[in-house]
Amino acid sequence: MKELKYKQVKTKLTIVKIGGNVINAEKALAIFLKDFASVKGLKILIHGGGKKATELASKLGFQPKMIHGRRITDQANLDVVTMVYAGLLNKKIVAQLQQYNCNALGLSGADANSIQAHKRIVKDIDYGFAGDIDKVDNTIIQSFLENKLTPVFCAITHNKKGQLLNTNADTIAAEIAVALAKTYHVELIYCFEKKGVLKDVNDDNSVMENIDSKLYKIAKDKGVIAAGMLPKLENCFYALQRGVAEISIGNPAIIVNKNQKYTRLVLA
Amino acid sequence: MKELKYKQVKTKLTIVKIGGNVINAEKALAIFLKDFASVKGLKILIHGGGKKATELASKLGFQPKMIHGRRITDQANLDVVTMVYAGLLNKKIVAQLQQYNCNALGLSGADANSIQAHKRIVKDIDYGFAGDIDKVDNTIIQSFLENKLTPVFCAITHNKKGQLLNTNADTIAAEIAVALAKTYHVELIYCFEKKGVLKDVNDDNSVMENIDSKLYKIAKDKGVIAAGMLPKLENCFYALQRGVAEISIGNPAIIVNKNQKYTRLVLA
Repeated sequence: MKELKYKQVKTKLTIVKIGGNVINAEKALAIFLKDFASVKGLKILIHGGGKKATELASKLGFQPKMIHGRRITDQANLDVVTMVYAGLLNKKIVAQLQQYNCNALGLSGADANSIQAHKRIVKDIDYGFAGDIDKVDNTIIQSFLENKLTPVFCAITHNKKGQLLNTNADTIAAEIAVALAKTYHVELIYCFEKKGVLKDVNDDNSVMENIDSKLYKIAKDKGVIAAGMLPKLENCFYALQRGVAEISIGNPAIIVNKNQKYTRLVLA
Repeated sequence: MKELKYKQVKTKLTIVKIGGNVINAEKALAIFLKDFASVKGLKILIHGGGKKATELASKLGFQPKMIHGRRITDQANLDVVTMVYAGLLNKKIVAQLQQYNCNALGLSGADANSIQAHKRIVKDIDYGFAGDIDKVDNTIIQSFLENKLTPVFCAITHNKKGQLLNTNADTIAAEIAVALAKTYHVELIYCFEKKGVLKDVNDDNSVMENIDSKLYKIAKDKGVIAAGMLPKLENCFYALQRGVAEISIGNPAIIVNKNQKYTRLVLA
């Protein structure tokens, strides 16, 4: 009976998403990757894009197309983000993790058909080659983890019909966390340049340390939470409701040291 | 006893390398990928670079650096080949194979530490971030194959110290073939735009259908074989001597249909 009890405890899986601003700062990224490599147990990294893609597009003479503040991914911009996210950034991150003896495996959603998506349905706006996720293959990701590999996902998926798609990295992190929550005790950590979700966007120390779904709704309605944070928090509560055990938002250092302020998300 | 005998027969593994000229022609590449997806059994694809990297470098204002006709990989050019080979080309190839129900997994040598290399030692010429291979991890590649995945390698490796390295795709194909020949009956096929090794470089039908190591030496000494083919043939005989069962050189169609001229390499 005792043995049975032990078997029922799920293995811990840490899923970390790092945002563009961490990736932009070479030194901060190196520190983060060393920290990430030191995290014990099973882990997955998801990385955003950073300004490199915008820089490359601009050097190549493309203007990033924006409608209502949202990026439109045309063919030229899809090629750029595929080069930068899946090529330059993903492989540099993998090579650095290998240096720290973390056996990283760089992936797009097309690789091993790990994340299947569809081109966003056109309603008012055609976002171009933007992908909305249909399915994360938890079995193949689990087989990588069991093989002592650390999957490192960039923000590119595919539609299984030969088309690559640009996909929001926060959403990828949430969907992977949900898909693996059936098997693992998943802790999902969103790392970015701030210490957490701020009450006052101009005061870096005004971290909201605990946000439950009720508080989130109130803060959202009152406009206390900055607009940019809303989709991230939507992703968090979506994931919590679907079995992800723990979710935090904070600066990259929290992956190794939680003796500092950060935001912890909980269901109400 | 009969059962034992069956067990001793090695499983077939097909390893295909496609060159830059196939990759440059979008339609030819699509036909090749459909054919490759249809190849039965275990398989691995290795792809070269093509002119996209040179085009991108030129658009960004870098001159490809050449010494004695050989490319020098400085930091800017390494970034370009990492973007193009590991990003754009690798992911487009993987997405297309997925479309044809081939469960492709795009890899650089840094991914899963599958191919470890060192920066080429400087003698007369500093080739920059060019990698010479030290070790292919046959165990991890085998685990992907056993998991019904088809590894798709681009020509980027790493040194396990955080540095990516540009590495010759023909050599990668040969080293992977050698590493897996211990376990599998490996057929290695080099595909390029010609029908095979030509006796007369100006006559596309002058295919040398069988080349053994003796004939190779004679043809090389007499200058019958074009200089560009020599490293490819060196790779072939290196691989044959180390247990690779079959090696062919020809146009991409030979992977599904050998009822045409192509070059077969054999030991003397």
